[in-house]
Amino acid sequence: MRAPAADKAAARDPAPPLFDKAFQRRLEELIRWRRDVRRFRPDPVAEATVAELIGIAALAPSVGNSQPWRFVTVADLGRRRRVIANFEACNKDALDDYEGEQAKLYASLKLAGLKEAPVHLAVFCDTATELGHGLGRKTMPEMLQYSVVGAITTLWLAARARGIGVGWISIVEPGEIARILDVPDAWALVAYLCVGYPEEAQLEPELQRAGWQSRVDAANFLLKR
Amino acid sequence: MRAPAADKAAARDPAPPLFDKAFQRRLEELIRWRRDVRRFRPDPVAEATVAELIGIAALAPSVGNSQPWRFVTVADLGRRRRVIANFEACNKDALDDYEGEQAKLYASLKLAGLKEAPVHLAVFCDTATELGHGLGRKTMPEMLQYSVVGAITTLWLAARARGIGVGWISIVEPGEIARILDVPDAWALVAYLCVGYPEEAQLEPELQRAGWQSRVDAANFLLKR
Repeated sequence: MRAPAADKAAARDPAPPLFDKAFQRRLEELIRWRRDVRRFRPDPVAEATVAELIGIAALAPSVGNSQPWRFVTVADLGRRRRVIANFEACNKDALDDYEGEQAKLYASLKLAGLKEAPVHLAVFCDTATELGHGLGRKTMPEMLQYSVVGAITTLWLAARARGIGVGWISIVEPGEIARILDVPDAWALVAYLCVGYPEEAQLEPELQRAGWQSRVDAANFLLKR
Repeated sequence: MRAPAADKAAARDPAPPLFDKAFQRRLEELIRWRRDVRRFRPDPVAEATVAELIGIAALAPSVGNSQPWRFVTVADLGRRRRVIANFEACNKDALDDYEGEQAKLYASLKLAGLKEAPVHLAVFCDTATELGHGLGRKTMPEMLQYSVVGAITTLWLAARARGIGVGWISIVEPGEIARILDVPDAWALVAYLCVGYPEEAQLEPELQRAGWQSRVDAANFLLKR
């Protein structure tokens, strides 16, 4: 027997859509052509489009329905400059970990599009949220951050479907970015995203094209128990 | 000027697809109708379909192209029983954190479909992978786990497009699941998934229908800086 609340909801729900083979193939194409974009055209992205993408991202699953995603658009040039300075310092520090040919290759990689991207979007996890009442995160507290990653992945695909590219910059200090953006103490940075129209569409990951790291067949990553 | 490697890749790439408004709407419908499923029909899911979904998941972005996702299908009934026992113990322990009406409501929630789901799929992060050569995770080592979450989110959408439901169980002890499944020490559990055909399609999250936690308008989660 269904609970009364479920009956009420079912009455409100429209008929579920059927996704056919053509859509499944198209979705796979979208997933294949999603790239981590670091080369942007200067064309602006409409503020309404960014809001629409955030609305779609918020349809992602979250532990206990806790919706811990917090989005910050960064337009202020002073703050952007400080973010870029932090990236440059972290990137220089990372370069020191490599030697010889690998160091040369690392130095040649374009790892961010912070200067060109029309939109900077920082995504935080509100680690103090009371939404969800703690459900599902007692043994795995990291589920809160994982929920935010699900929202970012969702946003990324919705953006690509609109011809908009996203690049995820992780070569920054999360605490420093939180300070630059003056967000509440309980907000932990999950991603600093560059968003904009890409210079060109690519099927192959940029790090593969550059010879840094190739794709491995997923069959190698499957065990049976 | 483009690098020679990029030119070679561009020559190999087919023309990029254009995703029209109709596809964008369909994708949003998919995202809206994706649910965390805990009520499964007993019908099996073909092994080839599971492999196909894993192949699509592996197209997700990963830090430094590190592809740290490791998938384990769990068919052995003895192992499944131990996973279910761990869930039940953790769920009982979690219930003790609630009181009064909230405790009653928690106890009434169906939080897993482990007994009915035809497919159990554990997803781990290989924290010792050398793929990606550490790129992008010096200041944010958690990027490795986040990459695995991106793959899971991708798999979830591809599954829903095929009418297949996914439920993410986080009310387990990650270390105990790793022991039960006898995986390498460096593998950290990110998700234990139930996969199968859902009893029914729902637009509204089950925790919202049950009165545990409603959705909040995403506009409340956006700051400008």
